[in-house]
Amino acid sequence: MKQFLSVKDVANVHALAEEAIAIKKAPYLPSIGQGKTMGLLFFNPSLRTRLSTQKAASNLGINILSINIKEDAWQLEWQDGTVMDQGNQEHIKDAIRVISQYVDILGVRSFASLTDKEADYAEHIMQQIQSYTDLPMVSLESATLHPLQSLADLITIKEQQIEKPKVVLSWAPHPKALPQAVPNSFAEWMLAAAYDVHIVQPKGYELNNAFTKGATIHYNQEEAFAGADFIYAKNWSSFSTYGKNLQLPNAEKWIINEQKMKLTNNGKFMHCLPIRRNVIASDKVIDDSLVYQQANNRTFSAQVVLKKIVEAL
Amino acid sequence: MKQFLSVKDVANVHALAEEAIAIKKAPYLPSIGQGKTMGLLFFNPSLRTRLSTQKAASNLGINILSINIKEDAWQLEWQDGTVMDQGNQEHIKDAIRVISQYVDILGVRSFASLTDKEADYAEHIMQQIQSYTDLPMVSLESATLHPLQSLADLITIKEQQIEKPKVVLSWAPHPKALPQAVPNSFAEWMLAAAYDVHIVQPKGYELNNAFTKGATIHYNQEEAFAGADFIYAKNWSSFSTYGKNLQLPNAEKWIINEQKMKLTNNGKFMHCLPIRRNVIASDKVIDDSLVYQQANNRTFSAQVVLKKIVEAL
Amino acid sequence: MKQFLSVKDVANVHALAEEAIAIKKAPYLPSIGQGKTMGLLFFNPSLRTRLSTQKAASNLGINILSINIKEDAWQLEWQDGTVMDQGNQEHIKDAIRVISQYVDILGVRSFASLTDKEADYAEHIMQQIQSYTDLPMVSLESATLHPLQSLADLITIKEQQIEKPKVVLSWAPHPKALPQAVPNSFAEWMLAAAYDVHIVQPKGYELNNAFTKGATIHYNQEEAFAGADFIYAKNWSSFSTYGKNLQLPNAEKWIINEQKMKLTNNGKFMHCLPIRRNVIASDKVIDDSLVYQQANNRTFSAQVVLKKIVEAL
Repeated sequence: MKQFLSVKDVANVHALAEEAIAIKKAPYLPSIGQGKTMGLLFFNPSLRTRLSTQKAASNLGINILSINIKEDAWQLEWQDGTVMDQGNQEHIKDAIRVISQYVDILGVRSFASLTDKEADYAEHIMQQIQSYTDLPMVSLESATLHPLQSLADLITIKEQQIEKPKVVLSWAPHPKALPQAVPNSFAEWMLAAAYDVHIVQPKGYELNNAFTKGATIHYNQEEAFAGADFIYAKNWSSFSTYGKNLQLPNAEKWIINEQKMKLTNNGKFMHCLPIRRNVIASDKVIDDSLVYQQANNRTFSAQVVLKKIVEAL
Repeated sequence: MKQFLSVKDVANVHALAEEAIAIKKAPYLPSIGQGKTMGLLFFNPSLRTRLSTQKAASNLGINILSINIKEDAWQLEWQDGTVMDQGNQEHIKDAIRVISQYVDILGVRSFASLTDKEADYAEHIMQQIQSYTDLPMVSLESATLHPLQSLADLITIKEQQIEKPKVVLSWAPHPKALPQAVPNSFAEWMLAAAYDVHIVQPKGYELNNAFTKGATIHYNQEEAFAGADFIYAKNWSSFSTYGKNLQLPNAEKWIINEQKMKLTNNGKFMHCLPIRRNVIASDKVIDDSLVYQQANNRTFSAQVVLKKIVEAL
Repeated sequence: MKQFLSVKDVANVHALAEEAIAIKKAPYLPSIGQGKTMGLLFFNPSLRTRLSTQKAASNLGINILSINIKEDAWQLEWQDGTVMDQGNQEHIKDAIRVISQYVDILGVRSFASLTDKEADYAEHIMQQIQSYTDLPMVSLESATLHPLQSLADLITIKEQQIEKPKVVLSWAPHPKALPQAVPNSFAEWMLAAAYDVHIVQPKGYELNNAFTKGATIHYNQEEAFAGADFIYAKNWSSFSTYGKNLQLPNAEKWIINEQKMKLTNNGKFMHCLPIRRNVIASDKVIDDSLVYQQANNRTFSAQVVLKKIVEAL
């Protein structure tokens, strides 16, 4: 594997998830990455992603160098040709070229501006970083995608051993405006897995159809949930009214509770965490869910990807 | 060993300290913890504890994942059943269940509120965390106890090879209100070691007698110091007027200086550090003391505990 | 090697740089530092230095304990004899004595006050720390020197294989007042290498001649650049009007651009990074430069120094 920025970098999502499941049985393989170093570049904070990637790297014997752009108070210039006589101390091109010499793999966590739709959907930050390095890059979540999460989600679904499941991605309420990275990525991975994919959201919250083509789109949660094997909940901000929380009057009715789960085919609840309890879903739904299994599988999604990248170095 | 939260988790404090002293002679044992990971969860900052635990883990080949709740800006909800539509992003139960999957041992540094005596003395934070995990937990200091410090103190005392020493725990002045964790813990470990334990403090600063039963209580420092083999100084806030610095008019007279040390049986001065020089004790007393040996023994107290926990995994 | 605080700790700079070049060919030598620990004590933040030192340590199998004084919010007292009843929680002597017990090598990053010339040039911070520890100390940049950078610079120059090169250290513009550590150190290393060393700066920016004795001093950039093999650019604040940015009216004319580089003997541009593009030097000059090779060589300058220190433990 030469990079891991989206599902497009994966030849066969089922084969990759199955390899992760095999690794999960005996994950301690410290000779595979011996002498190799991975840089983790966080443009916004991360906890689950940092811990699971560190764990995966440790299982493979890969050394980690971690860089928190904000905490390390490192002001970067992103424009070319600027006269850098203001606050920014270093050009991103110089930072990336330098870091690239200290590591063998570059993991990057970027973020959605939620204001500049074009830049976010062009993945300007990831693209610009990639233009300055020859290293294999791994997305630790970007403006519009979160493929390590989606791979962990696929692993979790496959562990349930349901033949061609009905998978429903449901919008859920949240007090803040959140990125579309997790739902975009989940949709494209589930479609790549050739599952029966349904997406349900209030009017105004439709995702970019570049990621959802092939899915059945609903606006009625009860209708969408009927017969579902998996309910994947997530809040996201509007794509059309870009980056906004539309403050719909009855948004809180989209909470996922026991009653709605009863409409499913004994369906399992999923969420990427962190989750706001009794806002996104009720306590009972979360307590009976696959959310911890998903979080655990973050280690093995990272580990299978790092293993394949190290093997191709 | 299944956990290390207080002296109650130790069958024989002398045997444990002696094993630490043996480890100190040849501490580099990296095959013992190979493939094992310890999470360090800091609810308040720590330096000595973090460094000594990292060193102990490294000596044992244990991988560390470190999490600073404040720096990592992770706002946690502690109440059950809350509708989480305000600032808190994740419930502590979800955070602990997730982290527990990435590690084999969970070290936690919590803190005393110094306002809610009941919650502090019920160790609500440690208890709540423990209710969400099956992992062996290690206290890196809690609201009312600091057992890794007390074990290091016991190791230090045993290294002096004095038969049934007279050990005096003395209150000392400090500008701020401090927790009772170190003195509570020191008292119960010294009593468990069956030493001749004396505690001296001004009226109003008596410790919770759940930890001091069996010790001789004094209010006159000179009287308490007579014939002592060890003077263990520490400031703590009031237990009865909970969490307060009582601002006693002559508090500064409780400083431990050379004159007072002369009342002892050539006694050694001890303190857990950090220490405010010329407030808790005079420069000369600190310079001639066991404080650095105590700090060094933090590595071996952590190491013997981690070794016993890893062996029981 | 017993310490690495300046060029004076190096018997033969050429031999050291050559050993680094040899290590660069096969840097992964994890048995050399097995069981050894290095403490990194940062009094001000660092990124390049932290990453390259971590990488070097990892290559040698040395365990790192990293301490950021500011982030870790650790308020230190530096004066002896103080009654510590104000904000400072721990005396530097106690902090250093404690940390010294957890590590085998102590790396320290200190800083120039830029206000107290005498203290800065006496290296009070490094000297005071050294008085409290018996460990070998490594400068990760100090108030007046940056020897790991200078060794990386020497490695880079030697890789160009030019017999007795003409090396020009040129002042360049910058919006802030910066320390003199990099230029002082570069000058003394280049002179120790017996190169043909030239230094050019505006009037008022002359460096301390303790570091520049033997170099040819210029005030005209064009004249200095004539026939140069290497142009090493750096901003620094005034030594005579200590620590000041003199706000010279035509400071920006000292930028290093393609026209000026044409005056050289096909000379190579160097800078320690981070660099303000189109302020210190033009984009084109930086893009055609040795700056990334210098940054890469930071790993090998750290590694050869750590190797020699570990071998002498």
